[in-house]
Order: sequence, then structure tokens, then C-alpha cells
Amino acid sequence: MSADPAPSYRQAGVDLGLADEVVRRLKPLAALTRTSGMKSELGGFGGFFAHPEPDSPNLLVASIDGVGTKMKIARLTARWEDAGYDIVAHCVNDILTHGASPLFFLDYLGVARLELDTIEALVRGMVRACRECGCALLGGETAEMPGTYLQGEIDLVGCIVGTVHRDRALPGGRVRQGDRLIGLGSWGLHTNGYSLARRLLIDEGPGVTAPLPGSEATLGEALAANHRMYWEAVRPLLGHPALHAMAHITGGGIPGNLVRVLPEGVGAIIDRGAWQPPPLFREIQRRGRVSMEEMDRVFNMGIGWILVVAPEIAADWCRTLDLAGWGAVLLGELREGPRGVRLSP
Amino acid sequence: MSADPAPSYRQAGVDLGLADEVVRRLKPLAALTRTSGMKSELGGFGGFFAHPEPDSPNLLVASIDGVGTKMKIARLTARWEDAGYDIVAHCVNDILTHGASPLFFLDYLGVARLELDTIEALVRGMVRACRECGCALLGGETAEMPGTYLQGEIDLVGCIVGTVHRDRALPGGRVRQGDRLIGLGSWGLHTNGYSLARRLLIDEGPGVTAPLPGSEATLGEALAANHRMYWEAVRPLLGHPALHAMAHITGGGIPGNLVRVLPEGVGAIIDRGAWQPPPLFREIQRRGRVSMEEMDRVFNMGIGWILVVAPEIAADWCRTLDLAGWGAVLLGELREGPRGVRLSP
Repeated sequence: MSADPAPSYRQAGVDLGLADEVVRRLKPLAALTRTSGMKSELGGFGGFFAHPEPDSPNLLVASIDGVGTKMKIARLTARWEDAGYDIVAHCVNDILTHGASPLFFLDYLGVARLELDTIEALVRGMVRACRECGCALLGGETAEMPGTYLQGEIDLVGCIVGTVHRDRALPGGRVRQGDRLIGLGSWGLHTNGYSLARRLLIDEGPGVTAPLPGSEATLGEALAANHRMYWEAVRPLLGHPALHAMAHITGGGIPGNLVRVLPEGVGAIIDRGAWQPPPLFREIQRRGRVSMEEMDRVFNMGIGWILVVAPEIAADWCRTLDLAGWGAVLLGELREGPRGVRLSP
Repeated sequence: MSADPAPSYRQAGVDLGLADEVVRRLKPLAALTRTSGMKSELGGFGGFFAHPEPDSPNLLVASIDGVGTKMKIARLTARWEDAGYDIVAHCVNDILTHGASPLFFLDYLGVARLELDTIEALVRGMVRACRECGCALLGGETAEMPGTYLQGEIDLVGCIVGTVHRDRALPGGRVRQGDRLIGLGSWGLHTNGYSLARRLLIDEGPGVTAPLPGSEATLGEALAANHRMYWEAVRPLLGHPALHAMAHITGGGIPGNLVRVLPEGVGAIIDRGAWQPPPLFREIQRRGRVSMEEMDRVFNMGIGWILVVAPEIAADWCRTLDLAGWGAVLLGELREGPRGVRLSP
């Protein structure tokens, strides 16, 4: 069972106390709209809806999200196609945590001024991501609002609908002490933490063309790296009884997202020594003298996805995923104790 | 058959030539993502997807849209709850043109600064609209992006998913010459034409507290009037063989939206004498010396919804709808001729 029982209201780019307050206020309101198809007691990263009947074995899983201020990096680096890819990857991952396969996606572009080539590049990126996971780009809307958006700015929003069989929906109540945690590598910041990263590396830092220490990339290239889509890694495992839960590491970092799949009385212990945060994260931390705690809370630290699996298959799955190029590592395990995530010092 | 065969890309707030160009460029891209479930040869106001199987009798119909610059009126009049209602009404109407009943809705709020009471009021309005049509508010996202949005600005986006039986999907190929057109009254501008209206009535006009000539309302009240939801009017008629098509009158006005349901070789003739545009439209036209042609292209002119029906039931349905408070009028009919909409002088 998820720890997040009402409709899936989320918050981006605001301090966590305020975000909690928004969610606290909105959830009871949204609950007033409950219909027989709404199965949100399962919800978390996405909302559930049974269709075509309230007792149908098929559940639709839906989620809406934005790319956020990563769009500013797309502008600085002219990598619009990557931003289009990112919004689809983000949405696909969100419903994939529930075991859902993508069906269709819709996009909304709010822009200060219409730039045809930019919009076409964004949609080209969406198309690339949709084709990668068999998702149909079913519709979209572009709105030009020079009085709403700052000059040159674009907000990119995506809404995805996927499907999962009721018996395969995750987390399905099998998460327990003793489970192992497998982390999969990210390609960068995903679509979170960009306000802080941009301030430290661009506005108060050396800028997009400067080299990233410890890497062959520039800061701009590292910041524009795609939000990785975990569909190909996870698809062969969907429905396997040893797959107990998954977490998509976005805003809130590993602690803020992994906790969402933990039941009461179960805590996660993660060994920091299991992996090395990539150069981009180390550079952000160094330049901003950011505390480890804040780094963990804002960034994925190189781990973009976590699988919670039965202990007997953990090493085998981890090796297979790693050989397939997913940068898989055994991160730690679940133990009896207070619900929460502890990273070893 | 719809005249709009590819995924439902739409454009708001831009000149029509440019909008056509966006759609022309994006449709073939989106078509690259076609999957077996995608049934967009039906599309138009929304996109179609067969589920759970590609040959399922049930089609999902999805649409995404924004409230646009009507949000500025919500700010000026502090009528946030109405703006929340509006985005749901707009989305419900869009899929209702295809005969679809709403299943669930998700919202996205992009804001310069998080204002808790404003967001709560917006969601309260969404809840009111969702309850009115039995739609579940399944999820949402709020993103605070002071570097993207102008100070005090909010963009409100909604995505809706509904359902219709394949045999009842509209327009279903029965639109033909001789069909009658029934118009239903709007409560105001819906969510279109606000940039022009605001300039003429607020920025260069007397402002929100000034009276609207010919009415007991202020300009602010008239501009903040809700986007009318036509669900209750249309629901009893869904699936009736005499209901051939429906058009939601948004950006593009009566000509730009009604044309979307016309087959080749069929034109619509509308009698301007059939109804009187409400005072708000007359005031906009008077203050801006706006041509009749531009008024028709930007505004709904008091007709927010059009039903295309078999001639033998038209008068009866029109009377029934009018008695039920929908401000129904017989607008005109379809005739053999070039595909298009002609309003009598």
C-alpha cells in the first residue's frame, strides 16, 4: 500500500513546508470529486481510475507534470529537442512506478512568443521519447501569452495516461523488511533542482561553456542531459512477483521519493559507498558549499530510479541491469524501524 | 467524419495564419507516434484512443487546454473559484463534442509565486465543476517559477479524459444537407478573446468596476462570467440517432468551430436575426469599432454551443432545451455547397 492515499497532488519548486501545506489543503477538496472509477487509495506518483467499469481489471494511471526551469537550460544551450524528450520521460517514469505501461500523452506549451522552430524541436523530442516507449502523442495545445510569461520564457507541461492490471499495480502491499534496493543511474539532474544548479553554475558560476571538472562535458551539456526514461529497464520485470515497488527520484531526492513506497514500521538503509555521485553533483556541492542533507533532498545524486525487490533475486537482477547499461547498484535494504530513509554517513 | 484527421493539435492566442502553420508542422510529427490504440482519424476537439484493446468498443477521448489570459480577469476581480470552474468546463465541453462523458481531470498550475488561498480557491472551482458532471479530479501539479512567469501571473492548464462507445462517437458521418443547427446560449466570452476584450474594456476602457451598458453587471462581472458547461443540456441526447454533431464555440468563433464538423460539399447558413448578441459583445464591438467579421472570428457572440440535428426533431429539441434554461435558438441549416460557414448579413 502506498503511504499517499488521496489524489496525487504534487508540488514543484517550492520549499517543502509550503508544498506540504498545499497538498494538505487540496487533497480533501479533490476527494469530494470521488466517483466509482476512482481508485486513488493506490495513488502516489499517479492517480488510478478503473475503466471501463469500476470493477474492471484494467486500471488507467494518469499523471501531469512540467519540465520546470530546465527550460532555461534548453534556451541557453539551444537543446529544445532534449527538453521535449524530458517531459515525456518524466511522465512515463511517474506512472511506471505503479507498474503502468504508457498509452498516450498530451502536451501543453505556454509561451511568451511563438517560435515555430523551437516548438517543432520540442515536439520532435516528445516524438522520440514517445516512440521509445510505444506511447501515442494524442494531442496538444500551444498558447501564446506575452502578458503571462516573461520574455523568451516557455512552460512545457505533459499529461500521460497509462494502464496496469489491477493485480500488478505497484506498490502492491509486498514491500517488507529484508527487501533489497537496486538503484539505476541517472544521466543528470532529471528535471529537478535546476533553480539551485543554475544559480551556482551559471548565474554565479562560470557559465554553460565552461568545462565540468572530472568530465569531458561542458556545464551546459551536463545540465541539458536527458531525464532518463526507465521504461526499457523495467518493462521485462513488470508483473514479476519479486518486484515489490519502484521509486522515481525527482524533487525530494532519494529520501523524499523512496519513503513514498514504504509501509509503516519499515525503514530504508542506503549505503552511500555503493555508488559515486557523478561530477555534476560534486561540482554543485563544491561551488555552493551545499550540505549533504540539502544535496540529498534536492538532487537524485546519480540514482534516478530505485527498485524494491525480494532479497533472493536482488544480486541477479542488479547484475543483469548493470550489464544492460543501466548503471545498476545494490544500494541497501529495508529494515524494521521507523518509516523513513537513512543514508549512511 | 471529422475534417480534422490527425492528432488534435490546437492553437490559442496567436494569429490564425501562424496557428495553421504550427498545426501543419506538428501533425505529421505526432503521427509518427501512432500506436494500435490511437483512433485519431476521428479526432478534432479531442484525441481518441481505444482501450483496453485496439478493437474495444470503448474509446477514451482526451484533451488538454488552458484558461489563457482570462486568469488576468480572475486576478482583477478576485474570482479565482470561477477560473477553476472555467478550465474544467472548457475541457468537458471539448470532449463532449465527440459524445464523450468525462471520467477524470488533472490540473497544472504554473505560478510566479505560490499564494495558498488563490490556489485553494482555484481548486474549489474545479471541484464544483467536476461534481457537476461526475468527473473525478484525479491529480494535479503546482509549480512555482518566478523566473518564468511575470510577477503575479498564473497559468492554469487542464487535461481531461472521457469515454464514448465507438458507435456513438461524434461526428459519426451522419452530418448532411438539410440538418438543422440549434445554438445554446453562453454566459460570456467562455475562455477566448480575452486579450482583445481586456484591452478595449480595461486597459484602454473604463475598467472592471464600470457598468456594462444594457446590463445590470459591471464590466468585471461580465468578463468573469463562467465558461458554461453544456454537459447537463447534452447528456440526455447522447447516443440519439438524430444528434449528428456538436461544436464547442471557442477561439475561432462560430465559423472557425462549426466548420470542423462539416463534410466536404456541405455549408452552414446561419441567420444572424435568430439571436441577439449579449451586451458584453456589443460593448466590445462599439468601443473597438471591431468589424463584424473579426467579432465572429474571435468571440462566441452569445452562442457557446451548436447542435447539428436531424430536421424533423429540431424544433422540438430546441423548445425543450430553451424551456430548460439553455437559451436555445434555431440558428440555421446545412445546405449543399462549398464547405464553410456563412452568417447572414
